[in-house]
Amino acid sequence: MMSVNFAVLGAGRIGQVHARAVASVDGARLVAVSDPVAEAAQAVADRFGCDIRSIDAIAAGDDVDAVVICTPTDTHADLIEQFARAGKAVFCEKPIDLSLARVRECLKVVDRTSTPLMVGFNRRFDPDFMAVKAAIDAGRIGAVEMVTIISRDPGAPPADYITRSGGIFRDMTIHDFDMARWLLGEEVETVMAQASVLTDPQIGALGDFDSANVILRSASGRQAIITNSRRAAYGYDQRIEVLGSKGMVAARNQHEANIEFAGAEGFGAPPLLNFFMTRYTAAYAAEIAGFVAALADAGPMPATGHDGMMALALADAAVLSVEQGRAVRVGEVTG
Amino acid sequence: MMSVNFAVLGAGRIGQVHARAVASVDGARLVAVSDPVAEAAQAVADRFGCDIRSIDAIAAGDDVDAVVICTPTDTHADLIEQFARAGKAVFCEKPIDLSLARVRECLKVVDRTSTPLMVGFNRRFDPDFMAVKAAIDAGRIGAVEMVTIISRDPGAPPADYITRSGGIFRDMTIHDFDMARWLLGEEVETVMAQASVLTDPQIGALGDFDSANVILRSASGRQAIITNSRRAAYGYDQRIEVLGSKGMVAARNQHEANIEFAGAEGFGAPPLLNFFMTRYTAAYAAEIAGFVAALADAGPMPATGHDGMMALALADAAVLSVEQGRAVRVGEVTG
Amino acid sequence: MMSVNFAVLGAGRIGQVHARAVASVDGARLVAVSDPVAEAAQAVADRFGCDIRSIDAIAAGDDVDAVVICTPTDTHADLIEQFARAGKAVFCEKPIDLSLARVRECLKVVDRTSTPLMVGFNRRFDPDFMAVKAAIDAGRIGAVEMVTIISRDPGAPPADYITRSGGIFRDMTIHDFDMARWLLGEEVETVMAQASVLTDPQIGALGDFDSANVILRSASGRQAIITNSRRAAYGYDQRIEVLGSKGMVAARNQHEANIEFAGAEGFGAPPLLNFFMTRYTAAYAAEIAGFVAALADAGPMPATGHDGMMALALADAAVLSVEQGRAVRVGEVTG
Amino acid sequence: MMSVNFAVLGAGRIGQVHARAVASVDGARLVAVSDPVAEAAQAVADRFGCDIRSIDAIAAGDDVDAVVICTPTDTHADLIEQFARAGKAVFCEKPIDLSLARVRECLKVVDRTSTPLMVGFNRRFDPDFMAVKAAIDAGRIGAVEMVTIISRDPGAPPADYITRSGGIFRDMTIHDFDMARWLLGEEVETVMAQASVLTDPQIGALGDFDSANVILRSASGRQAIITNSRRAAYGYDQRIEVLGSKGMVAARNQHEANIEFAGAEGFGAPPLLNFFMTRYTAAYAAEIAGFVAALADAGPMPATGHDGMMALALADAAVLSVEQGRAVRVGEVTG
Repeated sequence: MMSVNFAVLGAGRIGQVHARAVASVDGARLVAVSDPVAEAAQAVADRFGCDIRSIDAIAAGDDVDAVVICTPTDTHADLIEQFARAGKAVFCEKPIDLSLARVRECLKVVDRTSTPLMVGFNRRFDPDFMAVKAAIDAGRIGAVEMVTIISRDPGAPPADYITRSGGIFRDMTIHDFDMARWLLGEEVETVMAQASVLTDPQIGALGDFDSANVILRSASGRQAIITNSRRAAYGYDQRIEVLGSKGMVAARNQHEANIEFAGAEGFGAPPLLNFFMTRYTAAYAAEIAGFVAALADAGPMPATGHDGMMALALADAAVLSVEQGRAVRVGEVTG
Repeated sequence: MMSVNFAVLGAGRIGQVHARAVASVDGARLVAVSDPVAEAAQAVADRFGCDIRSIDAIAAGDDVDAVVICTPTDTHADLIEQFARAGKAVFCEKPIDLSLARVRECLKVVDRTSTPLMVGFNRRFDPDFMAVKAAIDAGRIGAVEMVTIISRDPGAPPADYITRSGGIFRDMTIHDFDMARWLLGEEVETVMAQASVLTDPQIGALGDFDSANVILRSASGRQAIITNSRRAAYGYDQRIEVLGSKGMVAARNQHEANIEFAGAEGFGAPPLLNFFMTRYTAAYAAEIAGFVAALADAGPMPATGHDGMMALALADAAVLSVEQGRAVRVGEVTG
Repeated sequence: MMSVNFAVLGAGRIGQVHARAVASVDGARLVAVSDPVAEAAQAVADRFGCDIRSIDAIAAGDDVDAVVICTPTDTHADLIEQFARAGKAVFCEKPIDLSLARVRECLKVVDRTSTPLMVGFNRRFDPDFMAVKAAIDAGRIGAVEMVTIISRDPGAPPADYITRSGGIFRDMTIHDFDMARWLLGEEVETVMAQASVLTDPQIGALGDFDSANVILRSASGRQAIITNSRRAAYGYDQRIEVLGSKGMVAARNQHEANIEFAGAEGFGAPPLLNFFMTRYTAAYAAEIAGFVAALADAGPMPATGHDGMMALALADAAVLSVEQGRAVRVGEVTG
Repeated sequence: MMSVNFAVLGAGRIGQVHARAVASVDGARLVAVSDPVAEAAQAVADRFGCDIRSIDAIAAGDDVDAVVICTPTDTHADLIEQFARAGKAVFCEKPIDLSLARVRECLKVVDRTSTPLMVGFNRRFDPDFMAVKAAIDAGRIGAVEMVTIISRDPGAPPADYITRSGGIFRDMTIHDFDMARWLLGEEVETVMAQASVLTDPQIGALGDFDSANVILRSASGRQAIITNSRRAAYGYDQRIEVLGSKGMVAARNQHEANIEFAGAEGFGAPPLLNFFMTRYTAAYAAEIAGFVAALADAGPMPATGHDGMMALALADAAVLSVEQGRAVRVGEVTG
């Protein structure tokens, strides 16, 4: 098997995760890293044995087949276009952009250049969620009817992150929107949402919410509900459940350890894994493997630019629903 | 302790459940039963050793302190008024009426006569749900933020029942509306709902839905979501979960037996209890005991006429929300 | 159906439980109670509406078909013989006697008089254990190989009870010996046991143990292990598990409520039901129903005098095994 | 930090696992592999980028600090002695030898040469078992009283493996003996064991057993029970539970995925991880890290030669207990 030569753009927290994944996946090789912060780039180069290069050098390099974009959100669309034009395959962390119009424009370039593009919806690669999807695809629950997603962060991100995040629906719920689309097996037609500030008034002062509920509905009447909070005292709560005509399948939460304690006060178990990188360790490794496999087969990407755009469209529709207190058709925001 | 003398009106399925509860609760005595079907009345009289009387004779009887109304829904409001005027305490199966206007009128009579009235929201007496409420009241989860109710019937009722039911929101979700109000600890201000026909087109032909999701929101921004289906292949699914500032508390489902099986195909456990009377056996016994205790103490009723009216108002608001695709303020329906 | 007329001998804690069961089982009627303590007898008579009589009067009474023996252990064998000779059916709380020789003698009288005799091994009627047995009988785990019984009391009984109890194996493990025989489906041939004093030195001072492990082995090599402690801080721990050639089936513990709590310290659930009467409420009701049904069908008793004797024989063998530090054949103690 | 240079002896299944662990642990470097099968050595050399050398060359090499012995059992003691004399640190897969006398002799050489020796009891490094141990050490259950180990293989190994294995107690139970010693916190004084052939008569024909139960007892009366079977249809069953004066702590089993399915037949979950390498993936990585850390600190080894010897002594005592049907003092076999 030919190896896919990779460069990682951005050597921050998530860049390091992807660099490690590239380095350990069969059929992939990490050849370069790029980061404006010299120490960050150096640390990745030392750890995984690769070059440090500028972004333009990577785009120009004959020895790079694919890039992993882990730079700040507002650079994603430009970089996708640059590397699409340079003939590289692109894996981009979500979101492509916070503006649906900009995303649409960017995807036109991707289309025109026939660039293989995968968007980093890592949860599609979580082993438990994959087992849920596999059960559905195997017909174990019959026709999908109702999806329930309970998704809560352990705690809110810092204020400056919130300011740049695009708001809870575009930053946090976007993962759940993608899961809902993936599990419903149909495009969503209508979005209803409700949002509050319950955990920290500062979040409200920044114009954002910390607690939200969303109802999605497809053309045939399938529904999904998503319940979000920025704060769960007991850890990173990530549950999905799908009801079908013949039954139900659900993914359970993951605890810090699979132990049970009992004493005079009752029974106990450890909190949930408390951090998205710990919770989704296996998913991050598997998504790069999925990208490499799709490149090798020249097959469809497991999470496409269209998927990235649609999740953002649902977020935009949710924002509008909260503002106007009504059900919003997705067509209203996709135009 | 003086005993409360009871008559049960209506000797059908739920009448028998309440007759048994009255017969076994300390401080209560079953003196009479009434039913237009002679055999039904006779069966209760034989089983529990009480008289058979007409409704008017019960209202006139000096030896009856309280009645349990288990007759068809469209007689509830009239009977409440008749027995309120007769000076009896009244326990009435939900709903008081399917028309909010009629309920309001009936509650005026109850008020004017200072009649002790309890509405049969049996779930408030389920031992597990009571333990959830007790944990909240004890401050274990801090301030309540988000309530999640997953409530699914094993299968849809027959067509003629659906026709008379008032629709899924007034017949099925009404229990969940009451649980949400009870757990939120604040009145609901806004209702958003979505509904579909997914399990059986005949339900749609009758003008009803079988699958629904609802988002409730209180003045302070607390939220509740309710997800309903008329069909869960695996039994009667009754889960509630409350997220607060310091944690979460949830009631688990109840299986036919607490056993676990394991074989080459994996692990297994029995289906859920499949029938509301089996699932809520303890709750039905406890609610009559709660009524008797409230009468004995001359204390507040654990589920009042106002509770019955407000749950119906939420149902009406949900119907309107589905029709008009918008958030409905509860004030719009309560007038 | 003809009703079986019952008298209950002994109006203490367990006598009241059985009186309630008799009063509520279809096909049974409580006609008399006997107890040397007048107040105890009166309380049962008042609660369930029956006569107070002397034991001899009950034995002589034409209107009594069956007795439930709930008197102190050292009277059981004499009473069984008296009522066997009086032609009554007998339900006797375990054990028949603490002496195997006395049991054998007593069972000869029962045999000679063809008396229907049931011994109160209530756990055979626990709904979960019955579901385990039903799964085995239905072939779900194939051939039974290994039984695991974890059986722990919440706390040790008072010293004077321990003195009269016959020791941990005859008092506590005896229930587990019966479960093991019932689940193994073969007679036990060899017993190995180990015992310690770990929870309270006073128990050792009384010549008893509080912590014990036992291995049982049948002729074909099937095995059971039993692990006992007189103290489990978290409640009454009652688990059984059966491994077979095709899988495993197990009964889970029962908590005070089926709720789950989560906070910064992790997840929690209430302690186990803490008292044998609460834990086995359903079993106590079902065992009297089982006795009545066996009488009605003139069928085999669900727990016979032989079962009572064999459980005691296993206890005697365990005592010998601890004393002599060796495997004891059951034949050594049954003679 | 200086890096520890490693050679792996034996490039079979377990050798590959350890080579991968060495390659990924910070502070360790894989410099050489040795295996009589050239292809096996080559595969490891290719995968992890190290030399292929003879065992003698490794012993003579100045650039090797430590070896991992993954060769057949009957070579372990000789290799430990060779590398002890060569001044290398040694990590050896269990057992050191099947003969207690040979182990004793080998450990004398280790002692005389002050060789850091760790024995591969991987389960001590399982994250869940470590969490159990940590809870005990933190005093959460008070004084340890009773250990319960349920340990079942998915299926029996091939006949030729069984022939060379030393029997179920020395091959399979040995891991549980080590866990029991580790968790009891006291040396075992007495062993009682029972063994049968229940899953496959061929195992009996080879002179071995497939089903065994063991009771261990320490001087102070603490006890452990171990229940073993060579066949569990539902996967690799690995549970431990420790009862103490203040409560209980237990490690749960690990399933193929953390999902739950529900349908008309009831609820289901996937089988257990079915293979020791999958079940203990994290443990295998952590034990090499533990070895490296102990070398770096010149601290005590987390599993010593003495631990290896004592687990074997318990196995020998169990064999004797089965043969003679009696409790065996460990001193009888350690001499």
